[in-house]
Amino acid sequence: MDANASGLFISIEGGDGAGKSTQAALLERRLRAEGWPVLLTHEPGGVPLGDYIRSWVKSEDAPLTPEAELLLFAASRAELVNRVIRPALAQGAVVIADRYADSTTAYQGGARGLSVKSVRAANEIATGGVWPRRTLLLDMPLAEIQRRVQMQFSFDETGRIEPPARVDDPGERRFELLGSDFHRRVAEAYRRLAKAEPERWTVLDGARPVEEVAEDVYARVRELLAGPPPNPNKPAPPPA
Amino acid sequence: MDANASGLFISIEGGDGAGKSTQAALLERRLRAEGWPVLLTHEPGGVPLGDYIRSWVKSEDAPLTPEAELLLFAASRAELVNRVIRPALAQGAVVIADRYADSTTAYQGGARGLSVKSVRAANEIATGGVWPRRTLLLDMPLAEIQRRVQMQFSFDETGRIEPPARVDDPGERRFELLGSDFHRRVAEAYRRLAKAEPERWTVLDGARPVEEVAEDVYARVRELLAGPPPNPNKPAPPPA
Repeated sequence: MDANASGLFISIEGGDGAGKSTQAALLERRLRAEGWPVLLTHEPGGVPLGDYIRSWVKSEDAPLTPEAELLLFAASRAELVNRVIRPALAQGAVVIADRYADSTTAYQGGARGLSVKSVRAANEIATGGVWPRRTLLLDMPLAEIQRRVQMQFSFDETGRIEPPARVDDPGERRFELLGSDFHRRVAEAYRRLAKAEPERWTVLDGARPVEEVAEDVYARVRELLAGPPPNPNKPAPPPA
Repeated sequence: MDANASGLFISIEGGDGAGKSTQAALLERRLRAEGWPVLLTHEPGGVPLGDYIRSWVKSEDAPLTPEAELLLFAASRAELVNRVIRPALAQGAVVIADRYADSTTAYQGGARGLSVKSVRAANEIATGGVWPRRTLLLDMPLAEIQRRVQMQFSFDETGRIEPPARVDDPGERRFELLGSDFHRRVAEAYRRLAKAEPERWTVLDGARPVEEVAEDVYARVRELLAGPPPNPNKPAPPPA
């Protein structure tokens, strides 16, 4: 059964500092103001198992083996898909995923060197075939990523975004820690994914001003929404 | 690389109440007394992640979706393989696994109806190609399983063995809860696995007296151990 048959599933992907969360939030606000029921998801999170796993990964001194990390995040995604995304789509919601299974492919497969076969297999189990109808890649040159990361973001050793860096812990240091090579590999992995499946992916220039990117993101999603919103006069509440 | 090149990896499989833990412990004691370095593993457990997952599964009211459960246990197994089993085999130990990846196939795939493809994919990532050189199936008729479960064992809703039942919580009730059909499906799934890969599996009649089964188990494993133990005069300590 096509999970997008009733609702619309959109994911936003890109490297660290690409502006995914900002764009996802702007898109959510605009669509909701028009009267569309919208659900915004982040990974890992949104389900109790995701928070539990997140706290484990953060608390442990010994890093997990790459295979265990892949499977843990896949488990969390399976919960998210079955308990949150699938029901919301069935109710006709627009689901906006701030990162989805492609992040695993780009980070764990592309940049960390797990086999493509393993990553694909884990994603297949986790998603159960529920894939976005459109995936927007916020792409930008490596130099721009580096500039943004140094200005605004920090991220932990596994490449996941953290809250904006404190002054005494500049993003620069974290960027150096992972190395520009890591970010380059992530960006290249995303571009390969987009090229391999052009009917799902749309590559956007994420280096433009926020408002310009937001307009572009909105237009690409809006063209997939047929007809007027279910309740154009009243902003829709988030689906239960 | 053949993980069994230096040590020897044995797994013991079978339905609930088949006597796996008893036989694994007897085998461990006998081999160790002869001077073989032996490592005994249980699943999930043996690594911090396994305990963490176990406590999550037990504490949550809402059962996990089957896909999430499959992936969680696979994550725990990946840690066990990479941190415990593989290093022990590299040191030349005899590793005895009280349940391994085949349990997932028999329970999650055979009896719970996840797709064979999903279960196989999860097992492949988790094991990283580390499979037992010999797997001993303790097989018995359904009536004998029922008798044993009622007498000695209880198990939780997901089919994992629990400590012996308290008097006020007889195994009989749990057996009824899962239904004899569940146990029949598990037993049949094991037999199918053994038939499909006869060079790895050895089917033993587990309904015989404990000592008789133990003698059989020992003989089947001993024939795989070439030469004398590394230190025949002194029982070996467990590998670090």
